[in-house]
Amino acid sequence: MTYFRPNINDMSGYAPGEQPPPEAKVIKLNTNENPYPPSPEALKVLQELPGELLRRYPDPMAKAFCQAASQVLGVPADWILVGNGSDDLLTMIVRACTEPRRQVVYPMPTYVLYRTLSQIQGAEFVEVPYHEDYSLPVEQLIAAQGAVTFIASPNSPSGTIVPVELLDKLARQLSGVLVVDEAYVDFAESDALELVKQHDNVIILRTLSKGYSMAGLRLGFGVANPLLLEGLIKVKDSYNVDAVASAVGAAAIADQSHKNANAEKIKASRSQMARELEKLGFYVLPSQANFLLAQSPSGNAQHLYETLKQRGILVRYFNQPRLDDKLRITIGTPEQNETLIKVLGNVLTSAMSQPNSH
Amino acid sequence: MTYFRPNINDMSGYAPGEQPPPEAKVIKLNTNENPYPPSPEALKVLQELPGELLRRYPDPMAKAFCQAASQVLGVPADWILVGNGSDDLLTMIVRACTEPRRQVVYPMPTYVLYRTLSQIQGAEFVEVPYHEDYSLPVEQLIAAQGAVTFIASPNSPSGTIVPVELLDKLARQLSGVLVVDEAYVDFAESDALELVKQHDNVIILRTLSKGYSMAGLRLGFGVANPLLLEGLIKVKDSYNVDAVASAVGAAAIADQSHKNANAEKIKASRSQMARELEKLGFYVLPSQANFLLAQSPSGNAQHLYETLKQRGILVRYFNQPRLDDKLRITIGTPEQNETLIKVLGNVLTSAMSQPNSH
Repeated sequence: MTYFRPNINDMSGYAPGEQPPPEAKVIKLNTNENPYPPSPEALKVLQELPGELLRRYPDPMAKAFCQAASQVLGVPADWILVGNGSDDLLTMIVRACTEPRRQVVYPMPTYVLYRTLSQIQGAEFVEVPYHEDYSLPVEQLIAAQGAVTFIASPNSPSGTIVPVELLDKLARQLSGVLVVDEAYVDFAESDALELVKQHDNVIILRTLSKGYSMAGLRLGFGVANPLLLEGLIKVKDSYNVDAVASAVGAAAIADQSHKNANAEKIKASRSQMARELEKLGFYVLPSQANFLLAQSPSGNAQHLYETLKQRGILVRYFNQPRLDDKLRITIGTPEQNETLIKVLGNVLTSAMSQPNSH
Repeated sequence: MTYFRPNINDMSGYAPGEQPPPEAKVIKLNTNENPYPPSPEALKVLQELPGELLRRYPDPMAKAFCQAASQVLGVPADWILVGNGSDDLLTMIVRACTEPRRQVVYPMPTYVLYRTLSQIQGAEFVEVPYHEDYSLPVEQLIAAQGAVTFIASPNSPSGTIVPVELLDKLARQLSGVLVVDEAYVDFAESDALELVKQHDNVIILRTLSKGYSMAGLRLGFGVANPLLLEGLIKVKDSYNVDAVASAVGAAAIADQSHKNANAEKIKASRSQMARELEKLGFYVLPSQANFLLAQSPSGNAQHLYETLKQRGILVRYFNQPRLDDKLRITIGTPEQNETLIKVLGNVLTSAMSQPNSH
């Protein structure tokens, strides 16, 4: 069709992980949802939400949420910009800062959406390979001097984290914007929030989808110097966050103890799952996120993914270099994790006893 | 700041109408909200929403909503594409179809966001003046041959409608996409939905913000041939509509009798308000929307806007050609409308008795 820009015709869209209908009987370990329910305080706000909040346009900046987040994070409310999920903030950044001669730079492999958003925008993108051990290729990232540099930390799908000292070095030596995408930070040992106070080119992205168990609500936010936010606000949809998300999200982020208790359970399960996978012969990267990247002992990860799917367990398989021999497995409840390990064990044992299978 | 693209630095963002906090004691007739509450069926769904719907990512295409809308509109569900408000669909269209040499075309004055989105995208825009009586400058719009042509019908801020025969002619003679933005169609005598069946370059936009009293929920949708939707889906945020909006919106659109009853009340109030304004000396355009564009008998509409604001009544004033002598007034409840007319009467009388005031 000639209705679209040539680069839209040429690209394929981003393919999100499978979302089976709510009634489907599957163990869903493919899109890094939190296995535990959201804060009861947040659910109470949802149930008691006055219809009047629906009738009127929401506050364009979702003040109710920003004030609650400001208290929790110890930054002023006007240093916080809300998004319809943190993907919305990624979109704002790419639209405000990049175009054909203003490049996007990021290490690989990482969140696939950075590439998709660059393609939509028609901006060139520079993909710098992570070192073998997933330490950051800092010098090459600095040399590339992107208009925008994306660093996911913890990174998906590796689960690895970038030390704040390296991010600080990047921020100092880049003349463009450094985006630290902390979607998974609630499961990590450290964060980079302090950098926004020292560098007006740094924006930290957070989401309520993972730590707060609210992927269905679509609420993310960026923290940065208001000078940086000003340009992003120009491209922001006026009412990008709805009245429900602002009110329910405010209650969710205020309930830190609920979020922290769930994160502790997930971290304990993560350690145990890593040990079990290693016993089965997987090589497992050290993860600070709510998932593990595990290299299959059989090599054939795609076959393993498909076999698990047939048995009602969804995990994530990426058909791309460095990942096509691995599975990314979300940490579920202890029961879900146990089932996964049991099924994986059976599949691998039967594969070994049938030399002709692959 | 040099972090942004030059066109972002040069532009100012879209300024939405004022949104006073929910507790503010104002009569809010400035952003065309519906004065009546949303469907009780929809509110029931909201109150009973299972937390599990929040925990998981929503369906990327908001199937629950599309199926309900499909029933009501009599089009297949895959002819419907959801947006985080219909503004989100406007954004998708501009991003998928326009760039520097692929122009945006629309008649003026109209919804200001068409220009803002073109500026963000860096696409040229051609603004064709409406005829004096707000009939459509069809030949000039055809001559401009935009990659995208936007027609709001009913139009804001004029409230006027474009006959479907003219839209059909446009669709046939344009090689680009024709967007018929029907945000206000629930208050109109006719609609253009049938055009999507005959023309694969036509997309009809609808919203739940006006007729369905759900501006706070952020839910809009486009109806078009799936061939056209395919390109838009590539630029759509994966999870642009949250699980709450999909479920609550499905119940709202299914409750046509609630929406229609409110629309009838508003249309009756609109006729009455037009008569009252004319008695006060205003010239009022015939409106098929839930607002009136009224030309001030005193000429000085900005002063009138400010005086009303001081007295706790918000209406909309646009400081631009053809509009700076007019007010756009949303139809409120009968009580709100009565108060507005009374206050306007007092202000105009006291202005006439004080010849030095302006």
